[in-house]
Amino acid sequence: MDIEVLALLTNMVGADRVSAAEADRLLHGRDQSSHAPHLPDAVVWPHTTAEVSAILKLANERRIPIVGWGAGSSLEGNPIPVQGGIVVDFQQMNRILAVHAADFQAVVQPGIFYKDMNKILGQQGLFFAPDPGANASIGGMIANNAAGTRTVKYGATRDNVLALEVVLANGEIIRTGSRSVKQSAGYDLTHLIIGSEGTLALVTEATLKLAPLPEHFSAVLATFESTAVAAAAVYQIIGSGLGPAALELLDAAAVSYMNMDESINLPVAPTLLMEFHGATAETLQTELRLVQEICLDGGAAHFSAGVGRAERDRLWHGRHQLGEILFRAHPNEMYLITDVAVPISRYPELAAYTADLINQMSFRGALFGHAGDGNLHTVIFTPEASRERDLHRFNDQVVQKALQLDGTCTGEHGVGIGKQKYMVHEHGEAALGLMRQIKQLLDPHGIMNPGKVLG
Amino acid sequence: MDIEVLALLTNMVGADRVSAAEADRLLHGRDQSSHAPHLPDAVVWPHTTAEVSAILKLANERRIPIVGWGAGSSLEGNPIPVQGGIVVDFQQMNRILAVHAADFQAVVQPGIFYKDMNKILGQQGLFFAPDPGANASIGGMIANNAAGTRTVKYGATRDNVLALEVVLANGEIIRTGSRSVKQSAGYDLTHLIIGSEGTLALVTEATLKLAPLPEHFSAVLATFESTAVAAAAVYQIIGSGLGPAALELLDAAAVSYMNMDESINLPVAPTLLMEFHGATAETLQTELRLVQEICLDGGAAHFSAGVGRAERDRLWHGRHQLGEILFRAHPNEMYLITDVAVPISRYPELAAYTADLINQMSFRGALFGHAGDGNLHTVIFTPEASRERDLHRFNDQVVQKALQLDGTCTGEHGVGIGKQKYMVHEHGEAALGLMRQIKQLLDPHGIMNPGKVLG
Repeated sequence: MDIEVLALLTNMVGADRVSAAEADRLLHGRDQSSHAPHLPDAVVWPHTTAEVSAILKLANERRIPIVGWGAGSSLEGNPIPVQGGIVVDFQQMNRILAVHAADFQAVVQPGIFYKDMNKILGQQGLFFAPDPGANASIGGMIANNAAGTRTVKYGATRDNVLALEVVLANGEIIRTGSRSVKQSAGYDLTHLIIGSEGTLALVTEATLKLAPLPEHFSAVLATFESTAVAAAAVYQIIGSGLGPAALELLDAAAVSYMNMDESINLPVAPTLLMEFHGATAETLQTELRLVQEICLDGGAAHFSAGVGRAERDRLWHGRHQLGEILFRAHPNEMYLITDVAVPISRYPELAAYTADLINQMSFRGALFGHAGDGNLHTVIFTPEASRERDLHRFNDQVVQKALQLDGTCTGEHGVGIGKQKYMVHEHGEAALGLMRQIKQLLDPHGIMNPGKVLG
Repeated sequence: MDIEVLALLTNMVGADRVSAAEADRLLHGRDQSSHAPHLPDAVVWPHTTAEVSAILKLANERRIPIVGWGAGSSLEGNPIPVQGGIVVDFQQMNRILAVHAADFQAVVQPGIFYKDMNKILGQQGLFFAPDPGANASIGGMIANNAAGTRTVKYGATRDNVLALEVVLANGEIIRTGSRSVKQSAGYDLTHLIIGSEGTLALVTEATLKLAPLPEHFSAVLATFESTAVAAAAVYQIIGSGLGPAALELLDAAAVSYMNMDESINLPVAPTLLMEFHGATAETLQTELRLVQEICLDGGAAHFSAGVGRAERDRLWHGRHQLGEILFRAHPNEMYLITDVAVPISRYPELAAYTADLINQMSFRGALFGHAGDGNLHTVIFTPEASRERDLHRFNDQVVQKALQLDGTCTGEHGVGIGKQKYMVHEHGEAALGLMRQIKQLLDPHGIMNPGKVLG
């Protein structure tokens, strides 16, 4: 990195918060995807919005790539600094600035990790509902419009952010939205920024919608003879007017992997793992009876509701560990993570197609997903380096299938590096052209996370 | 209107779907607000997206103002063609193109009125939840991000649109979003268009999220000694984790006006009018017991739940008639409608302040609102033409108060004409500047609903 730029950054934030050391660059060169790492030239850890503004102004004048960094837990190469430049790591902007408990809102800095935040908010009976699983930062969740297991009830990150403070490429600071849940005053800049993966602006503050911690909840397990039958039960449940707080599909392989954790011992079969919340014990019981009826009518071989709190926490911990277990089980293998979503009526077809394709192409791995909102993941592995192209062919075919079923190439991981090639097919040239114009308007010199989303 | 332009429009759509007749222009010169009417030069009724595209292309080349038209039921002057030009009336693009019942989705043209649409969808047990009260068109609801009584449970229009087809100022047709509920593929153009009040594009097709008609529901009434006490009960209810499907505040005057309808006979007192939906009769009963407890603890003088279906329908019909009743009761008077929203914890203060101000300024009229989401309306009247400035002073003070309470100048009516003066205060120069740049990008010649939102 240009020695003068380093000196200017050091002047801005002090020597202890700028680094061009290889160790720091290595830590900011890859996420949890299989995309090739690339190191930034420098890393800087701002403390204030004013510092972020000064850094961007400098980068904009010098045409230096800028990439925001949270937890590095994204799954599509979203924060890999493929053109080098400066990584702005928000680790030290991680405070909760205000909790408006009566309004179910918190104002936070982007560097806070959502699980850490939820531990603190839990003391007031509140939580931020989107839960991607890995301990993502709020800034990263906003950038990628992260979702997770609870989105079927509570929505994605997009649905749980009321207002933002962001810094544009030229250093300008703008505030979007308001603390009012209802807003109809002008263009929706908040949603333009959410999901833009750091290519339009960096988020320096967010006002989040919170939910009250449910007083009564129960995990529910149902097993089925096939993944397709399990997937078919999903939309019966959704269609019933029940509001599951989570509705996860796991194929038999996914369950086997979860069982590698000693605390989990599930029957190995295609499974729906669900959770229901009730305002009272009675409403909860009624919902559980209804979902049991639907599952049994839908061909469930086994159904159990009302698992206790400890067992429930174990199950969700196991579900959240699934990714990590998969990687531990396949050390040094090549892998690929898919993330498509379709309308719920098409979910059985997508799940059946994908399950067949895994078998057909002889990949090991697992199929699972946030079935309640039509989102399907796979993580597939191969020990043979020669099969790298097959991994991508698998991804291509799953995405083509999802698009053919009126779906999307990415439900929650974002476009990052790997999904750019599908953008024209999904959106058409005209809409993609408008996205490019908006990018050009907000970031004329192309310094904001270059090489992502739109290329 | 330029005779050549009329001839070109006639060539495009046929003589029976273009008019420069005064009768047609008069019908398209005002909405239901008190803003001064202004006539367009011509009205055109397209049948297809291609026609809309051709009309916009022509208007863009000739620099002719274009204003979309639905039902004319908006409340802030949003579709008044203040610079003349062409009104594009979508009345004849009013078909339901597809119902995806299993996915709770419908694809519709913008000219359909939501009440008419819901009658048809109801045959399949489905409905589109946002309900502004007046029989608005879907296109208008999208343009203004309309909301209404059910938004507390189901969200505003913004939360219930998955995909759009829109025509840009230059005639280009783009498709945004997808039928997948989960989407993280690129910039959120759908939400950029929603609420932009026809200043960025015209919507020609919308994919809507639907909800299942509730099988079990009950209206609930609770009266309180003062508007402030009633408003304070609101956030106890919201905070309890109960999910009311509607939570309306009515001051005593509003109840009196509602009673002018012969079918309504409510005790005249500050009132919360609520509705609860349950998946089963049992869950519903449990919720009703809980809300009763909260209301009585919160000082309710009177509480009644479990009103029957006919009575419930009467009550909601009465609530939706309130606006009309008010206008019938004050013929030929000057009036003003306010529409602010604040975080729920600030609602009691806003309601108390506004109630006092009505008294202080000796206006007749009513205070009411979608309390569950912090939205407060008033409709105030004066027979004295000399007091027009006082009406605006009232609006100014209510808006200033709402902004001071971290709220917004418009919860659901949009910026239109009357709220432009508050935009800088609410958003700041920087954010407003970005909105202006986006407007300039999408509509460089300023033909799309000129004089609205950003002026």
